[in-house]
Amino acid sequence: MPQSLLVKGFRFSGIAAGIKQSKSLDLALIYSEVPARVVGSFTTSRAQAAPVQLSLKNIRSGLCSAVIVNSGNANACSGARGMKDARSMVRATARALQVPEEWVQVCSTGKIGVPLPMGRILKKIPEAVGALSPAGFLQSAKAILTTDISEKIASAEGRAGNKKYRILGFAKGAGMIEPNMKASAALRATRAAGISSGARKRAPAVGHATMLAYILTDAALDRSFLKSAFREAVEETFNRVSVDGDMSTNDTALLLANGLAGNAPIRSGGRDAREFLRHLKAVMKSLALQMVVDGEGATKCVRIEIRGAKTDSDARKMAYTIANSLLVKTSFFGQDPNWGRVLAAAARSGALFDPDRADIFYGPVCVARRGVSTGPLKDAQAKKAMKKRDLTVILDAHAGKGRFWMYTSDLTLDYVKLNSCYRT
Amino acid sequence: MPQSLLVKGFRFSGIAAGIKQSKSLDLALIYSEVPARVVGSFTTSRAQAAPVQLSLKNIRSGLCSAVIVNSGNANACSGARGMKDARSMVRATARALQVPEEWVQVCSTGKIGVPLPMGRILKKIPEAVGALSPAGFLQSAKAILTTDISEKIASAEGRAGNKKYRILGFAKGAGMIEPNMKASAALRATRAAGISSGARKRAPAVGHATMLAYILTDAALDRSFLKSAFREAVEETFNRVSVDGDMSTNDTALLLANGLAGNAPIRSGGRDAREFLRHLKAVMKSLALQMVVDGEGATKCVRIEIRGAKTDSDARKMAYTIANSLLVKTSFFGQDPNWGRVLAAAARSGALFDPDRADIFYGPVCVARRGVSTGPLKDAQAKKAMKKRDLTVILDAHAGKGRFWMYTSDLTLDYVKLNSCYRT
Repeated sequence: MPQSLLVKGFRFSGIAAGIKQSKSLDLALIYSEVPARVVGSFTTSRAQAAPVQLSLKNIRSGLCSAVIVNSGNANACSGARGMKDARSMVRATARALQVPEEWVQVCSTGKIGVPLPMGRILKKIPEAVGALSPAGFLQSAKAILTTDISEKIASAEGRAGNKKYRILGFAKGAGMIEPNMKASAALRATRAAGISSGARKRAPAVGHATMLAYILTDAALDRSFLKSAFREAVEETFNRVSVDGDMSTNDTALLLANGLAGNAPIRSGGRDAREFLRHLKAVMKSLALQMVVDGEGATKCVRIEIRGAKTDSDARKMAYTIANSLLVKTSFFGQDPNWGRVLAAAARSGALFDPDRADIFYGPVCVARRGVSTGPLKDAQAKKAMKKRDLTVILDAHAGKGRFWMYTSDLTLDYVKLNSCYRT
Repeated sequence: MPQSLLVKGFRFSGIAAGIKQSKSLDLALIYSEVPARVVGSFTTSRAQAAPVQLSLKNIRSGLCSAVIVNSGNANACSGARGMKDARSMVRATARALQVPEEWVQVCSTGKIGVPLPMGRILKKIPEAVGALSPAGFLQSAKAILTTDISEKIASAEGRAGNKKYRILGFAKGAGMIEPNMKASAALRATRAAGISSGARKRAPAVGHATMLAYILTDAALDRSFLKSAFREAVEETFNRVSVDGDMSTNDTALLLANGLAGNAPIRSGGRDAREFLRHLKAVMKSLALQMVVDGEGATKCVRIEIRGAKTDSDARKMAYTIANSLLVKTSFFGQDPNWGRVLAAAARSGALFDPDRADIFYGPVCVARRGVSTGPLKDAQAKKAMKKRDLTVILDAHAGKGRFWMYTSDLTLDYVKLNSCYRT
């Protein structure tokens, strides 16, 4: 295990508890030797799974000693029994680690509408506790996966004063990906008011198969900086990727900071805060892009960039509509620079612009100028640019100064194969 | 040709003008011997193709003698040349038929961003005029197709006073299908005001590969009834189907009424109006469903029905989000009663309801009661119900009296195959 993946005071394990039929790793545990400050972002779906509801409650304590995660079963749409099961998972973890229940976060991902095999899980939690080690990280990163092909890991190292700190993140997510998560505090407030939170205000949905992400740092962070930094980083990373536009019932991202690096707590403003935020975004952006690349069946990772929209909000609408258009996504798969579909998607997004003034680029190649084709030579060049896995498509609307960017995958035969028989 | 498809005074032709590489029929002409009253519904996309813009202008005359339609090329994203080409098509048709230009409607469907082969088209228009006949109807219905497998035709017969009238419709549309069309008058007003029309207010987009529909009747209709009847019928038929959620740049539906049945013009209110409206809706609903069934690669035609939503608007949001969810649509293809995906889609739609109170039915089978599975036996029964082409999925939210229904297709391997290489 590379030295850089060691974050002071954090230990991990990942074991097989028999939740997945495949017998592969399906129970992960993250543990901080001292209670860490915690902030979270959760799905804005109205059908929040039981573990999300319970984690939202526990996170009010502001502290977290452990995160228990199972894959293979989402414990979603599981009624009263679902909440009971989530509570049992938290209780068993808290007991085995001798920490308060409200310092435990719980996550589940996998099939919806099927009860958890609680007998097996409760029996295995002490084993997961026994297996904890600083090097158990890879097992942990593997145990949270479902349809993912590979584990998603990213790390960074920084300095605050004369102290070195590390940031380590791991994540899962391949289908049902379009997070649109809200920070815990904001979400609680809107829920309390009986409002459906961001769902109604946000742009048309993009999509993941549940995204889970855990960011762990030994840096000491001031509470308010912890919150603002995470909110900003989520907005610019996890909330900028789409695989299939289906927001999940279980999306959860957590940032734990245990302070064992020994630095003076980083506060908003100043050089240390800027550096930490830069590292945090780099780790989270890497995880987000790994999700797109590993998107179910995906062969492309496409950055959709809108320039010259009337407003940033218009740019966002255009980007989301393009990123989620089935016709655009299939054309990426076919490596066909079918810019007419890109323009048509932007034109139905509700954004105000004149398609006859828009320029479109595939990579460095301008395929449409003022809404009209630049000819077969450019088309052939764009086709060539599309052969690579990574591509940037730029739409310049020439309607103002609004900008937005996000990442999306292509829609492939394998996506349909995977998702038409996932449950069976 | 069945007698019932003859509508007094209408003549048709469909010929091959060499626009499609396949050399199949690609130029259709509809002609009414006397100018017909006309009303239209057009795409609300900001990238309205040139023929749509020109038809919107001409329809202000309130009369229509002819509709000229080409397939194989959408004349969209074609700049100033596109408008010039659309004008040339109208002018050549008007000349050959000796009618005013503003009595001619023009439509195009097919590839985006490629100039029309105008030389060939202009040469062929007199031939299309020469081929006009009451029985040319099938050729006309074939000549407007693109990726459609078969022509879409529906008809009805009614009585007003002691006069018999007929309604005949034909349509095309298989991909890029989710019309959300607006009646011409309303659209003009919002465009004039610089507002992006219905696009911003409507529910998240559903979708077609351009929908074109022509409804022809020899009934005499009062002008205001013509408009209100068509608006109501579009809302409950074409605007209730989705194949891929991609609204097209060219969607157009026209209703022509030439009055040759000799009845006293039907006015709003009264038995004649109700009967006509019923027949009109039947014809248009049949065409709409034929589009879903013929959706690119589709193997299923699924009615999504929302009951017990807080409001009708909430019900609409839920239905659209379910109908457009990639995960839901792939589960239909896989014949997998994965109701968790249906509930998860509704839960991210922005509608206010408690997923723990929702019931879900696949056909007659209740697969989830109060948000929880009803068990493996019901699951097996639902699986069986999904083997048929036609299926109804009902979500009862138990949150109020709001209702909405719409039709969608499944997302299949063939959809991806067709659309990843359509242009090449």
